[in-house]
Amino acid sequence: MEIKGLYADSIKGLKSSKIRELMKMASKPGIISLGGGMPDSVNLPFDSVKEIINQWSDKRAIDALQYGATKGFTSLLEKIKERIVEKKGISMEGQDIIITTGSQQALALVSKLFLNPGDTVIVEIPSFIGAIAAFYSFMGVLEGVEVDEKGIIIEDLEKKLEHLKKLGKEVKFIYTIPNFNNPSGITLSMDRRKRLLEVANRYGIPIVEDDPYGDFYFTGDENDYRPIKSLDDSGTVLYLGTFSKVLSPGIRLGWIIAREDIIAKLELQKQSFDACTPLLSQVIAEDYMKRGYIESYIVKMRKIYKTKRDAALKALERYMPPEVKWTKPEGGFFVWVTLPEGMDPEELFKRTVEKNVAFVTGDAFLPENYKNRYIRLSYSNISVEDIDKGIRIIAETIREMM
Amino acid sequence: MEIKGLYADSIKGLKSSKIRELMKMASKPGIISLGGGMPDSVNLPFDSVKEIINQWSDKRAIDALQYGATKGFTSLLEKIKERIVEKKGISMEGQDIIITTGSQQALALVSKLFLNPGDTVIVEIPSFIGAIAAFYSFMGVLEGVEVDEKGIIIEDLEKKLEHLKKLGKEVKFIYTIPNFNNPSGITLSMDRRKRLLEVANRYGIPIVEDDPYGDFYFTGDENDYRPIKSLDDSGTVLYLGTFSKVLSPGIRLGWIIAREDIIAKLELQKQSFDACTPLLSQVIAEDYMKRGYIESYIVKMRKIYKTKRDAALKALERYMPPEVKWTKPEGGFFVWVTLPEGMDPEELFKRTVEKNVAFVTGDAFLPENYKNRYIRLSYSNISVEDIDKGIRIIAETIREMM
Repeated sequence: MEIKGLYADSIKGLKSSKIRELMKMASKPGIISLGGGMPDSVNLPFDSVKEIINQWSDKRAIDALQYGATKGFTSLLEKIKERIVEKKGISMEGQDIIITTGSQQALALVSKLFLNPGDTVIVEIPSFIGAIAAFYSFMGVLEGVEVDEKGIIIEDLEKKLEHLKKLGKEVKFIYTIPNFNNPSGITLSMDRRKRLLEVANRYGIPIVEDDPYGDFYFTGDENDYRPIKSLDDSGTVLYLGTFSKVLSPGIRLGWIIAREDIIAKLELQKQSFDACTPLLSQVIAEDYMKRGYIESYIVKMRKIYKTKRDAALKALERYMPPEVKWTKPEGGFFVWVTLPEGMDPEELFKRTVEKNVAFVTGDAFLPENYKNRYIRLSYSNISVEDIDKGIRIIAETIREMM
Repeated sequence: MEIKGLYADSIKGLKSSKIRELMKMASKPGIISLGGGMPDSVNLPFDSVKEIINQWSDKRAIDALQYGATKGFTSLLEKIKERIVEKKGISMEGQDIIITTGSQQALALVSKLFLNPGDTVIVEIPSFIGAIAAFYSFMGVLEGVEVDEKGIIIEDLEKKLEHLKKLGKEVKFIYTIPNFNNPSGITLSMDRRKRLLEVANRYGIPIVEDDPYGDFYFTGDENDYRPIKSLDDSGTVLYLGTFSKVLSPGIRLGWIIAREDIIAKLELQKQSFDACTPLLSQVIAEDYMKRGYIESYIVKMRKIYKTKRDAALKALERYMPPEVKWTKPEGGFFVWVTLPEGMDPEELFKRTVEKNVAFVTGDAFLPENYKNRYIRLSYSNISVEDIDKGIRIIAETIREMM
């Protein structure tokens, strides 16, 4: 059948990702992948999950296998709130929480809630690929703001907002990953967090704060990485969290903390998105928190990821030519590398894949029309030996291409 | 902070459901609920799930806990296709499959893919609440088509389509639940399936066929309930399936079978919706199919649900006054009851809840502006004794109100 006028206009926002095509080239056996931003496979806490499930009563098994409330499994919501208040210094006054099917669903729900076609979203340069995809999918227009080693340059943000205001453009929200940004690895300084919030309040623009990596800091303590949301006493910030890095991405479990009225709207919207997030995942996560496994897992993985980060920085220092620059992440999974002037990241990718080493080219993390000379290296899911070897081969290939 | 121009226009499509408010009234201990359309809690196959997880190798556990492909876990996709070809008579030629996070996500993805604000969707009267919510959420306009005991009245559909064509309205798809419709319990006859497909082809309008209950027929065999998709040789039908009734709704696992080019678009869209459906759920489901547990569970539950259906019809026959009419479902979970002329379903609800019996009022299943004199009774998740008692009390209350 020929179907007439088939699709909605919003399919224009759906880009067939070049990255996916490139990553397919890289999915061959034995490849050293500094590509995907995945948690460490060999340390996923399967034993905890198995133990938890084996101890369920019949009643609890029904909770896990039956339908549940759209907003989330009540006792899990309580557990998350407790931890957020204690560890992140966020006040729940006037705020509420909703469970999402991974943080990616949170991004889709927020996009749908705020964006009319053509509305503007402010994103860091570079920013998370999944967020960019969600904003485009709901026909948002992305406006980039520059960052340095302390995160968003507040003066640049103010200049952009002033400019957009003059043009009469509606800025719906500012999207940021303040802790160990994906892909840049950069952390927004505490001083700039305050100033960012102040600017957002002055312009009346919500901040969507995405914090998947906040528990994995390698220096200082949790107070050094407190979310912008912990400074927010007027409901400006929507705070996004996830179990993907502290338990498992395969259970697809995230959450949003925001003003009660915003959560109520998001809940209505989630009803038609997937009715509820898997109860199986939610009941597992509640037990995982209740038994304190989450805290011991974080302590353990913080050390493991730090060792990997150290190996990555050491290898970069040792092998890269002086024309190459990179960020020094204080936590998280990623290093962002700036290639020598004029070097094509895609060409580099093709050459290293031939030598069995992969990474992600930077254009995935940039809005349209940004010129790319970056690559993202993820050290989270490969061994220290492979980090060293992979970076050595990338460095050698860069030298060949120079 | 006062946030200016906060939300997108599409929030107008989000209705705070009166049903949910009513159901809250009904969530008290000891209530006999003919309300929620849930599978039988006490027979959820937790032992199978536990056995499956306990036998996973380390490699398989990583598959279940790590990120996965947006389209779905490859070996699960293969298993579903095999079963669909064998049991449902669907040809996969030129067709492809994508996993969704429950059928509800399939409905949201399809809505977003096809609907511009103001586009028309044809729905049966009555139709599934979750589908109606998704279509409204993406700013669709619903046009109802009348049904009788054999399902959609094809002449009414043709009249509507002709009328809409004259008005220049864009009809994007026809949504139908041909087997044991939720909420009506009605089955679309095989003859009308053919005619519906013929009409859809003539007008160039896709059919979205939702088949959550198809395995639970109480008479005849699977050939009597073959999907419209099994008759479709030109890619007109998008076929939606789910594990919610044959395994567990708490794992949130559904799928769509449709033309390859449509699946490719849905896959791009799903990337920004939730990246992937829980791998934990997908790996469990693959083992559940591979070990044949799905077939034995269906055989077992078919008997159990038939016994419940029989109890419901017997009680209706026995207790209801002659002014009350109801459908005679050949399968599935639901009976649709027409109240005496002028009786208010909400008032009936309030009165029976006082006597500890709940159901769902029919307006949940009707587009806006339809007058309601219906209630939906679900027999799937309560005992035969409670079915009898619940229907007796509803009947008594109806008599009181007459």
